[in-house]
Amino acid sequence: MARVVVDVMPKAEILDPQGQAIVGALPRLGFAGVSDVRQGKRFELEVDDAVDDAELAKIAESLLCNTVIEEWKVTRLS
Amino acid sequence: MARVVVDVMPKAEILDPQGQAIVGALPRLGFAGVSDVRQGKRFELEVDDAVDDAELAKIAESLLCNTVIEEWKVTRLS
Repeated sequence: MARVVVDVMPKAEILDPQGQAIVGALPRLGFAGVSDVRQGKRFELEVDDAVDDAELAKIAESLLCNTVIEEWKVTRLS
Repeated sequence: MARVVVDVMPKAEILDPQGQAIVGALPRLGFAGVSDVRQGKRFELEVDDAVDDAELAKIAESLLCNTVIEEWKVTRLS
């Protein structure tokens, strides 16, 4: 078994209203010095060793990510 | 400026219906070998160098994470 992380973030050119809401809320809560926030998703998968990187890429692209507005990255944890 | 990632995941003892929905969908889409999926959130922050780890912990705990059901981890990118 391997542990795999798939990070899905909005593309740089896509507006991120959730992130902007956080940027706006931080000063009101007394936190200064944060100039930008982007909110995305993190998936942690338990996969068989037989599942290779190509199949993980297909899973990320077809099920976990909307590739029109999001980009993804697969990382295998040790 | 520093780039900081805050990962927010459901606690191990908390049910994760979104992750379970993905586990259920994978075989139907032809992907075998994934035994568990947990879905959480990933925040990417741009912060001033003056913002220290204690303040980042406060931001994660008070704004980004519901500590009743979620756990968080702060990572500074290079």
